[in-house]
Amino acid sequence: MAMKTINVNLADRSYPVFIDSGTLSRPEVIGPYIAGDEVFVVTNDTVAPLYLSFCRQLFRSFRTETLVLPDGERYKTLDTAGQIFSALIAHCYSRQCTLVALGGGVIGDLTGFAAACYQRGVPFIQIPTTLLAQVDSSVGGKTGVNHPQGKNMIGAFWQPRCVVIDINTLNTLPDRELRAGLAEVVKYGLIRDPEFFAWLENNAPALLRRDPQALAYAIERSCLNKAQVVAADERESGQRALLNLGHTFGHAIETGLGYGTWLHGEAVAAGTCLAAAMSRRLGWLDQDEVDRVTTLFSRLGLPVNAPALGVDNYIGIMSVDKKVRAGKIRLVLLAEIGRAVVTDEYDTTVLREVLRSAKE
Amino acid sequence: MAMKTINVNLADRSYPVFIDSGTLSRPEVIGPYIAGDEVFVVTNDTVAPLYLSFCRQLFRSFRTETLVLPDGERYKTLDTAGQIFSALIAHCYSRQCTLVALGGGVIGDLTGFAAACYQRGVPFIQIPTTLLAQVDSSVGGKTGVNHPQGKNMIGAFWQPRCVVIDINTLNTLPDRELRAGLAEVVKYGLIRDPEFFAWLENNAPALLRRDPQALAYAIERSCLNKAQVVAADERESGQRALLNLGHTFGHAIETGLGYGTWLHGEAVAAGTCLAAAMSRRLGWLDQDEVDRVTTLFSRLGLPVNAPALGVDNYIGIMSVDKKVRAGKIRLVLLAEIGRAVVTDEYDTTVLREVLRSAKE
Repeated sequence: MAMKTINVNLADRSYPVFIDSGTLSRPEVIGPYIAGDEVFVVTNDTVAPLYLSFCRQLFRSFRTETLVLPDGERYKTLDTAGQIFSALIAHCYSRQCTLVALGGGVIGDLTGFAAACYQRGVPFIQIPTTLLAQVDSSVGGKTGVNHPQGKNMIGAFWQPRCVVIDINTLNTLPDRELRAGLAEVVKYGLIRDPEFFAWLENNAPALLRRDPQALAYAIERSCLNKAQVVAADERESGQRALLNLGHTFGHAIETGLGYGTWLHGEAVAAGTCLAAAMSRRLGWLDQDEVDRVTTLFSRLGLPVNAPALGVDNYIGIMSVDKKVRAGKIRLVLLAEIGRAVVTDEYDTTVLREVLRSAKE
Repeated sequence: MAMKTINVNLADRSYPVFIDSGTLSRPEVIGPYIAGDEVFVVTNDTVAPLYLSFCRQLFRSFRTETLVLPDGERYKTLDTAGQIFSALIAHCYSRQCTLVALGGGVIGDLTGFAAACYQRGVPFIQIPTTLLAQVDSSVGGKTGVNHPQGKNMIGAFWQPRCVVIDINTLNTLPDRELRAGLAEVVKYGLIRDPEFFAWLENNAPALLRRDPQALAYAIERSCLNKAQVVAADERESGQRALLNLGHTFGHAIETGLGYGTWLHGEAVAAGTCLAAAMSRRLGWLDQDEVDRVTTLFSRLGLPVNAPALGVDNYIGIMSVDKKVRAGKIRLVLLAEIGRAVVTDEYDTTVLREVLRSAKE
């Protein structure tokens, strides 16, 4: 299997995404993307015992310091970003240092945000070790932390210098997290790539048994879709919002249950099913299409029923979402499998009916 | 006196700086630069009693919420930025809101940083009410907060939509702060505008007695210089670093004495005298030029002798400055009056001699 390279085209902020088995053992892949001679690796206490030694080898010709944070979404806060700043300053790291995010989406978002703000911006590199981070959060430059009252409310658009995906890291990923990552993979099929959706329907079993070829293809095709969307709309003034399919509902599920009860991908799967149900009620999808969506998520072991949080509670949480405009909640809905639409032109009673049907 | 407009040319991030008496009473000046219909004014408890009512009038056709912070550099922290985020979220402010910084440099830096990070970036407007903020910090998009171990170590480049300067606000500025602001005015003369330096030598008394024409001219010419430098080098990869004349020494003075003991402009004046003394020792300036620098600062009532913090203490604090590269402290020095140079090619013993001479 040869290394695949996908370019994210953003003028002077363009960068490659490298996908292969064993990239974490090849310093020649990542080396050229390190600015200066200081490397600062941020990781967590789950990933560190597994892969930090690879990183030390990878960066052995650079001064390398590390910060190991506790694992979990609840540490994705402004306070934790403050810990990164304190460590960088304690080590006298200059503007010419490079931050490295070694871990999943939480580590990537947090480290990227710290890189965006340290001395008004230093380079950073993503080494995503979860499927979710590999297919989604590590590509595209969305960085940030949570506020107690809203996910990702504090952040920056800050592109990495490169993204290095080592598929071997998925060998240590728990099944539940692998499945959660597949929710974001399905998303690309639903919003813009119907062929890929059909491929996923055919290859669900191969993905679940971690067939390396199937995983590599799913990651590559996901990153290609993500790169195209980001290149067309870096700061989410238009089509990039389509990537939030299932996310407005999903964020409400995560916030409503308390961060960490459901995994992000699980909330996105159930949230996407709510979006599909609402699209059906608006007459945009037919029942066969809704069934294809829920069937695929089910076969991938993902939840298709959202929790009963109460309609007003859902609406309240969704109203602090970043996509709200002029008080109306903007939703990503499905016009068909392979085509999504951002809209706030819907009857609010339909939204309430859909939320009332949530009953896991 | 007609309104002066200076444009900061930064492609799609370009914006005007409006300078006049009474701009705070003219909604037609600022109105076109407000995005959306939500305005959030951040100010402090010194400025609020003086000018917040003007702002309420100015924004009477928008939904307007305000946050009044305690006055002082020691509140320019990540925690205070967190308070701004909490207030914005509590008021359900969306991505389409506009933040307004009403106050001096601390309020401007903090509010700009909050705008850069809230929902990954919202528009903001600067209404600087101190001379220092009017001639320097409100123009150019440098935003940020302090870390206990270093000034402005956390921040972002985030340009305002416009800067509205009402010269009348200087009527309530204490003498000491007016003088501190003049230190940054002198800076422009020293680094790139020898004619302006000569004008300042001739007009020091008029500025100190707050002659409106003299102040307006000094502000306009300062903003013009600042706008040109920022347009040529937005992110400080080159000549923008010249604006830090006296600042590496000055930051060390502020940090060494504890933030707030000396005003920023006072530290910059004494720091610039250290830079001039060092330039003299390197044979770049002659003694007449050094004397012109110290004489002008003295006439403006600014300190020309840096405090005796101890050589190692100075070097230690200066080593965490953002301009450090590969362990060598980069300094802005004077080649002549009207021309500055950024360099790390100097004999460290010369730097130590200059610091040893500090003896206020």
